[in-house]
Amino acid sequence: MAAPRRRTSAELQVNGGLMPPSAHVIASSRGGSGGGAPSREDHAVTTNGGGPAHRGGKQRGGSSACSATKVSGRRRPAGRMPLWRVFIFASVALNVAALPLLLHQYIVSHPHHPGVVSPDQQQHHAYAPQPGTSGAAASAPSTGKPAVTTDSVINLDHGDPTMFEAFWRETGDAAELVIPGWQTMSYFSDVGNVCWFMEPLFDQQVRRLHRTVGNAAVDGYHVLVGTGSTQLFMAALYALSPADANQPTSVVSTAPYYSSYPAVTDFLRSGLFRWAGDANSFVGDSYIELVCSPNNPDGAIRDAVLSSGAGKAVHDLAYYWPQYTPITRRADHDIMLFTVSKSTGHAGTRIGWALVKDREVARRMTKFVELNTIGVSKDSQLRAAKVLSAVSDGYDGGASRHRLFDFGRRKMVERWRMLREAAAASGAFSLPEETSGRCNFANETAANNPAFAWLRCDREDVEDCAGFLRGHKILTRSGNQFGADPRYVRVSMLDRDDAYDIFISRLASLK
Amino acid sequence: MAAPRRRTSAELQVNGGLMPPSAHVIASSRGGSGGGAPSREDHAVTTNGGGPAHRGGKQRGGSSACSATKVSGRRRPAGRMPLWRVFIFASVALNVAALPLLLHQYIVSHPHHPGVVSPDQQQHHAYAPQPGTSGAAASAPSTGKPAVTTDSVINLDHGDPTMFEAFWRETGDAAELVIPGWQTMSYFSDVGNVCWFMEPLFDQQVRRLHRTVGNAAVDGYHVLVGTGSTQLFMAALYALSPADANQPTSVVSTAPYYSSYPAVTDFLRSGLFRWAGDANSFVGDSYIELVCSPNNPDGAIRDAVLSSGAGKAVHDLAYYWPQYTPITRRADHDIMLFTVSKSTGHAGTRIGWALVKDREVARRMTKFVELNTIGVSKDSQLRAAKVLSAVSDGYDGGASRHRLFDFGRRKMVERWRMLREAAAASGAFSLPEETSGRCNFANETAANNPAFAWLRCDREDVEDCAGFLRGHKILTRSGNQFGADPRYVRVSMLDRDDAYDIFISRLASLK
Repeated sequence: MAAPRRRTSAELQVNGGLMPPSAHVIASSRGGSGGGAPSREDHAVTTNGGGPAHRGGKQRGGSSACSATKVSGRRRPAGRMPLWRVFIFASVALNVAALPLLLHQYIVSHPHHPGVVSPDQQQHHAYAPQPGTSGAAASAPSTGKPAVTTDSVINLDHGDPTMFEAFWRETGDAAELVIPGWQTMSYFSDVGNVCWFMEPLFDQQVRRLHRTVGNAAVDGYHVLVGTGSTQLFMAALYALSPADANQPTSVVSTAPYYSSYPAVTDFLRSGLFRWAGDANSFVGDSYIELVCSPNNPDGAIRDAVLSSGAGKAVHDLAYYWPQYTPITRRADHDIMLFTVSKSTGHAGTRIGWALVKDREVARRMTKFVELNTIGVSKDSQLRAAKVLSAVSDGYDGGASRHRLFDFGRRKMVERWRMLREAAAASGAFSLPEETSGRCNFANETAANNPAFAWLRCDREDVEDCAGFLRGHKILTRSGNQFGADPRYVRVSMLDRDDAYDIFISRLASLK
Repeated sequence: MAAPRRRTSAELQVNGGLMPPSAHVIASSRGGSGGGAPSREDHAVTTNGGGPAHRGGKQRGGSSACSATKVSGRRRPAGRMPLWRVFIFASVALNVAALPLLLHQYIVSHPHHPGVVSPDQQQHHAYAPQPGTSGAAASAPSTGKPAVTTDSVINLDHGDPTMFEAFWRETGDAAELVIPGWQTMSYFSDVGNVCWFMEPLFDQQVRRLHRTVGNAAVDGYHVLVGTGSTQLFMAALYALSPADANQPTSVVSTAPYYSSYPAVTDFLRSGLFRWAGDANSFVGDSYIELVCSPNNPDGAIRDAVLSSGAGKAVHDLAYYWPQYTPITRRADHDIMLFTVSKSTGHAGTRIGWALVKDREVARRMTKFVELNTIGVSKDSQLRAAKVLSAVSDGYDGGASRHRLFDFGRRKMVERWRMLREAAAASGAFSLPEETSGRCNFANETAANNPAFAWLRCDREDVEDCAGFLRGHKILTRSGNQFGADPRYVRVSMLDRDDAYDIFISRLASLK
C-alpha cells in the first residue's frame, strides 16, 4: 500500500470556515502597531470591555450624542439641503460630541499622580484598576516612567537608562528593525553552535563591537546570549556549582555589592548555590566570586579578592564601556557578562551576553537558559544586533556620524559636574573621589563617571539617607541593600534630563 | 548659590572625539538587518576573524585571485583599451575568481549532515566550529532547522511549530512589526499595573483573542506576560509555594506528563518546590497539581485529579485552541497558561501569558519574572501583540481574510489522516482513539487533532520505541521521559511539510 500522500487543494475536503456564527460586524481596524511617537490625539475611545484597538482620533460606530446644530450663513428652502452638506454637518456634530468623551477618557487613563510609584511601592498606589477593565485602550508602545514636574517624586532607585533615548532619536532609522510576520518562528537558530538558540547576526555584532572598543577579548571565546545579563548571572551560578556537592556552593562579592546579587542568588533557595555575603570576610576553598567592575553601586574599579584553587570568578562588566570609564585593558577573564541595558540603553529589549572560555561551562550555561526559558527571544536578539551594529558603524570606519560613546561620555561628564556642584552647594553630602586613567579607546586620559552615584549623607542626625531623601521626594536605594551603611544611597545617573535636573536642583537646596 | 544648570552647547567643553586613532577604513556597510527571505546568493565571503557583515554577493576588498582572462571578439591596438572596459573586465574576473570561494564557504557553513543534530545530541556533532572563528559571516536572521532530504534524519523530538510558517507568509505584512531605534528602551511599561513590565498593547490583544475564541474567561483576571509559558510555569511554582514551609511543596501531574515538568521543577533543587511524580499516586494535603489540557504528550482532555483543601492547580492550556481541539467551554481556572509558540507558531519570539484570578498570586508571579529576568522583552511583546491582532482580525469582523485557526485545523486534520493511514499501512504502530466534541467557536462537531502523536510500537520485540525509530533515522522523545512506558514515543505533528512527509513515508514502510 502506497504511503499516504498529501491531497491536492481540489481533493481536500475543507470544513466550513471557523467564522463564529454570532460574529457581529465591527468597524474594520488593524489593532496596535509600532512606529512613531505616540501622540495624545491618537488615544481612541473604545467601549468598556476592550474591543479591537481603533486608530486615529475620530470615533467610528454608533454614538448617539448627535445633537449639535450648525447655523448656515445662507438660507435654503426647507428640505432642499444637499446630501453632502448633511454628511458634513453630521460628521462635525459627532466630533464635537465626542470631544468631551475623549477628554474624559484621557483624564481617566493619565491621572496626575502625586508622584511616580516604584514597582516596590505598588501596594500604596491609590489608582489600582480592576483587572479585566480596559480603561482607555492602549494605542502605542509604552514610553517608560511617566513624565515628571517640579512637584513630582523623582525616582532614581532603578538604573533605567532613558538618558540614551535622546541619542537614539537622533539616529533616525539607522537602528530601526523590521520583523516580517513569518520570520524566526522556530525555536532553533544555529543547531551546530553550543548556544543553539543564538542568532548568528547577534554573535557577529557582539564580536565586532568588542574588537572596535577593545574592552574584551573575543577570539577563543564562546558568545552566549541571555534575557538580560541577570539571566546569565544565574546561568553562571548553575554552571559553576558542582551537581554532586554535599552543600550549596557559596556565592560572594565584596561590599558594597550589587543589591540583586543576594536576591537573585537566593530567591529559589537553590540547593546548588547560596549567597554567603562579603568576599572580604569569606573563609573557604570553594566559592563563586562575583566581580563587578566598574562596580555597582560605587563605580570602583575592581579585581577578584579571592584566589583559592577551587574557587571561580564571574566578571560582571556591565559598565565597562567608554561612557563610564577609561578602557585601560582588553579584559580576558574566564566568564565576562555584558548587557545592552547599560551599553546602549535598551533595557526594555532584555538582552545580555556572556563571553566564556570553557566549552563545558558554556554548555551548562546554555542548558540553564534552555530549561529556564527555552532560549532567548530572537526578535530581541535581532534588535540588539541592529543596535550594536549602529554603534560600531560610528567607530570602525562605517559611514555613521552617530557616536554613542561620545554622546554618553559627554552626558556623564556633565552630569557628574552638576552633581559635584550640587553636593558642594548643599554641604550635607559627599561623593567618591574622582579617579581617572588612560583610555585606549579614546587615546586620552579620562575620568571615571559611574552610572550610579554612591552618595553619602554626612549630617550627624541622619542615619537613614534613603529615608531622609524620600522625605524630600527623591527615591534612591539604601546602602543597606548593598551590604553597606544606610548613610549611603545609590542614585541613578541614567534617567531623562527632566528628572535629573529636578533631582540636582532639590539636592543643592538640602542643608 | 544657584543650583548647577546644564551648560549650553557653546559653553560645553567637548572632549576630543572618541574615534580610535588606529581605526582603519573598512568598506562602509550596515551590518545585519531583518526583512526579506534569506537568499543563498546573499552569503558573503569575509576574512577569518569576522569583520562587519557585507551585504550582497560581490566580494569587496582585496582578493588576490585575479587571474582570469577574457577573450574579446574585437581586436584593439595594444594600450588602447578604454578604461571602462578595463573596469568591466576586472569586475567579471573578480567575480569568476570569487565563485569557487563562495561555493567553498557555502559548503563549509551548510554541511550536509547525515542528519540533523538535536540540541541534546550536540556532543556527537562532528562539526564543532572553534569559538571565535566566524566561518561564513551571517547575513540574515536564522531559518530554524536545516532543510531535509529523503536521506536526512528527521527530528520530530521537539514541538518546533514551523508548520505555521506557510500561513504567516501568506499574510504578507499584516503581522509585520517595525521597531524604531529609540522605542521601549525603559525597563518600565505600565507602573500602575501589577505586571509593571507588560506592554498594554499586549494585554489588550490577549483579552481580545480570548473573547473572540471563547476558550478562556478574561474579565476579572490579571494578565501576566512571561518569556514563554515555561517561565510562567516556574513563576507559578514560586508563587504557590509557601515561603515558610518546612519542606518543599510537592509538584505533581498525572502520567503521561510533559517531560519538561520534572526537569524545570528540579533543575535548581529549589527548597520551595520539588517534583513528586504522578498525581494519581500522590498522597498528601499540600501540593501543586499541573493540569495540561489538551495534554502533552497524548492529547487527552483532562481535569485536575486531586482536590485537597491546601492543594493548588495550575492549568497549562497551551493546546486549547481550535486547530487542535474543539472549544467546548470557556475555561475559568485560577491560573491558566498560554503561549504563542503553540497558538500562532511563533516559538522564537518567546512569549507566553498567564490569566490569574488572585491578585497576590499575580504579584508573586510578577516578582519571580522580575528577579529572573527583570521583566520580559518589550520587542517580543509588541511582536506577539501584532501577531495576535492579526489572528483576531480574521474572526471578529476585521477585514482580514487570513484565518489562522481554519488553516491550522485543516492542516491538523490532514496530518492525522495521513498518520493513521501510515500506522495502518505499517501494522506495527498504534495511536490514541480519535475523540471529538462540540466546538463552540466553529459551531460544529470537531475531532481532537493533537499537536503531538502519542505513538506506540506494538511489535513484541521492541521495548524501546525511540531507539527503534532512531535506527530508522526518525528522532522522537521516549515515553519514559513522560513517566510512561518506553514503548511509547511522542512525535511532533507541527514541523514543516518536507520533514513530515518523509516521516510518514518512512513510518508506513516499517513492518
